[in-house]
Amino acid sequence: MSHITAVETADIRFPTSRSLDGSDAMNLDPDYSAAYLRLATDADDGLAGDGFVFTIGRGNNIATEAVQTVAEMIRGESVESLLDDMGATYRRFVYDSHLRWLGPEKGVVHMAIGAVVNALWDLKAKRAGLPLWQLLSSLSPTELVGLVDFRYLSDALTPDEALEIFEKALPGRRERVNHLLDTGYPAYTTTPGWLGYSDEKMVRLSQEAVAAGFTQIKLKVGDSLADDIRRLKLARETVGAEIKIAVDANQRWDVPEAIEWIRALQPYDLAWVEEPTSPDDLLGHQTIREAIAPVPVATGEHIANRVMFKQLLQLGAIDVMQIDAARVAGVNENIANLLLAAKFGVRVCPHAGGVGLCEAVQHLSMFDYVAVSQTTDDRVIEYVDHLHEHFADPVRIADGNYLAPTFPGAGTEMTLEAQHQFRFGGLSA
Amino acid sequence: MSHITAVETADIRFPTSRSLDGSDAMNLDPDYSAAYLRLATDADDGLAGDGFVFTIGRGNNIATEAVQTVAEMIRGESVESLLDDMGATYRRFVYDSHLRWLGPEKGVVHMAIGAVVNALWDLKAKRAGLPLWQLLSSLSPTELVGLVDFRYLSDALTPDEALEIFEKALPGRRERVNHLLDTGYPAYTTTPGWLGYSDEKMVRLSQEAVAAGFTQIKLKVGDSLADDIRRLKLARETVGAEIKIAVDANQRWDVPEAIEWIRALQPYDLAWVEEPTSPDDLLGHQTIREAIAPVPVATGEHIANRVMFKQLLQLGAIDVMQIDAARVAGVNENIANLLLAAKFGVRVCPHAGGVGLCEAVQHLSMFDYVAVSQTTDDRVIEYVDHLHEHFADPVRIADGNYLAPTFPGAGTEMTLEAQHQFRFGGLSA
Repeated sequence: MSHITAVETADIRFPTSRSLDGSDAMNLDPDYSAAYLRLATDADDGLAGDGFVFTIGRGNNIATEAVQTVAEMIRGESVESLLDDMGATYRRFVYDSHLRWLGPEKGVVHMAIGAVVNALWDLKAKRAGLPLWQLLSSLSPTELVGLVDFRYLSDALTPDEALEIFEKALPGRRERVNHLLDTGYPAYTTTPGWLGYSDEKMVRLSQEAVAAGFTQIKLKVGDSLADDIRRLKLARETVGAEIKIAVDANQRWDVPEAIEWIRALQPYDLAWVEEPTSPDDLLGHQTIREAIAPVPVATGEHIANRVMFKQLLQLGAIDVMQIDAARVAGVNENIANLLLAAKFGVRVCPHAGGVGLCEAVQHLSMFDYVAVSQTTDDRVIEYVDHLHEHFADPVRIADGNYLAPTFPGAGTEMTLEAQHQFRFGGLSA
Repeated sequence: MSHITAVETADIRFPTSRSLDGSDAMNLDPDYSAAYLRLATDADDGLAGDGFVFTIGRGNNIATEAVQTVAEMIRGESVESLLDDMGATYRRFVYDSHLRWLGPEKGVVHMAIGAVVNALWDLKAKRAGLPLWQLLSSLSPTELVGLVDFRYLSDALTPDEALEIFEKALPGRRERVNHLLDTGYPAYTTTPGWLGYSDEKMVRLSQEAVAAGFTQIKLKVGDSLADDIRRLKLARETVGAEIKIAVDANQRWDVPEAIEWIRALQPYDLAWVEEPTSPDDLLGHQTIREAIAPVPVATGEHIANRVMFKQLLQLGAIDVMQIDAARVAGVNENIANLLLAAKFGVRVCPHAGGVGLCEAVQHLSMFDYVAVSQTTDDRVIEYVDHLHEHFADPVRIADGNYLAPTFPGAGTEMTLEAQHQFRFGGLSA
């Protein structure tokens, strides 16, 4: 038996605002950051579990404090007990009544729980000698159901229905694993589309994206309608009619404004419109979707938890669910989100980019393909070409696909060099 | 001109779990706590602005870190500039793009913004020599509209509609101020109803509540249906048919379970059922309300922001809006909530208790009566008889009413003695 012997957090910030990478209508100057956690044990395997909250700069110290507080709950505890029942481990964090007051199940504390849960999954996958997506894809339907918290979901998804979804996907698991190992999972790229880029840079990066095999790009919109129309027209001329173009407003609009603005952009054939308004405005998304049909509506990177996703699906308010690896309470809650999407027949196209989000979320989409939805049709994982070099197992993209990761773990481990070079605050342990 | 010269935060925790004060179906052992802020200036008036986030123990350090981070934004700035345009000051915190990533507008960071905004209102009221409710009630309709952020609200409430609501309430402001000074604002008490209390203690405290002039009490439910029926029956026998009894499930149920459980309690004549399920489950509240009619549904203490309240009202999902002084982004956002309630014709019965919540929220209800809804009909402010002695201007209750506070300020100032005696972490400045 081994124990959690150290709970080390670090406030890590990359100065991305200098180049306006990541700039959009609401986020003018992000400094991509991670409230980083490393769980060490006294096992003689030398393995640690790594996880993080992704932030965009100021406030990363708050997230780091939260990660430390949540992780302290398991210091000294048996690693095997924690990892053997990850369903119970996850629920214990979420139902800590004191911490719950600070959400419940939303914001900094919920994201911190996600970092700790993901770090434990990273450790569990490393111990199993498997990349997370393969570890999850090797679990039985009953084991998978046990990972999910059905509280507040039972009017939309029951454990029996979840079991049925997993069981229906049992046949062909091996073939789908092999397919991923052979060809990977489709990606799209946001690299050309940041709002702070010049037209010339946008055009050049769009050309490069098409040349690299991507079949979809995404542009940030919402600051100026005239600029958006000019940029969209230019992008459409650059990539031609066959390449999909999605647009992302990053919550910029109220409901009536969103409808008017999107209608003005519709002639340029939108793959989807993302975050048209407040992520909390579920009814707003429903109204917008009805008004702009057939343009698909996408959201998720700021959807706080499975209860919010449940309602977006019950309302028929979204066409695309954009799960995020570091927004909700980790792998477990994202399995609930994948199940909800499967139940309601909505496609999942994860949010990624930032720091480490690509590395982490690819495991969830690949697990979804193998053991839940069984399809990659019309599904793409976001890809942004930044900061991958700082991860122990950086994503590999080939011909517009994420290649399946083969290193053991959840993809969440940052290199020690990056941890030291970009440390903002001190290390606490 | 004066400046913000110090931003002092303190992690203050009261050991309330020892007596099971505050225990309910989800919160078994709360230690009522405050992430406390004091803004000092270099003016020679000696006045400071005090505000806090209320928590129930573990994690109060996270809230304290968040308050410090938000408050640092205004260190060194002109007090007059900040206080003269509180609408702009509030929006600046909420739209800080980096901090926004950690919500947006929910959880720890949003509550921390509330603490800073409330501390500034406390300072502004002290400088004006008025209790906050009277300061707010002295502002013109145009000034009041300027305090509100209408982003994400315009499909339900426009600035023009808000102006109309305030203007309609201009006549009679003075009479209503005098009425509050004479007789106060109706209260109800939760003191008898904590789940951890014995039947004997519950009965004794219920008798005392009726003797003290309260016309409504509230019982915590949701742990055991048999216990709930026994306690409700006993309470009803104790207080008689004329006293109202509300019940509070503190988010314990899923939607189908809530409906079944409440129907079993309905024979005991429920004034309302509070937090029947997840505060995020807006559609769940709607379904429950339809199924248990005519029992009123109440919620609010965990409703993260005005966008969530907007939808509860659009859906017709609640009968009672329970604003909380320390959950949303302070006085400004609660003015938006009061306007939404007025627009949709829903009564406001604030959540209070904890530490300092009674002291703070009474100002909002009194302002609502004077300048928004013009009525106290069927409206009551929650009252719990704990920890008031630690505040500079503790609430005064007489004959079941909150007496109108007359001390300058927002009611948020804790005594220095309490700040020192119950300090958990260190003081940072």
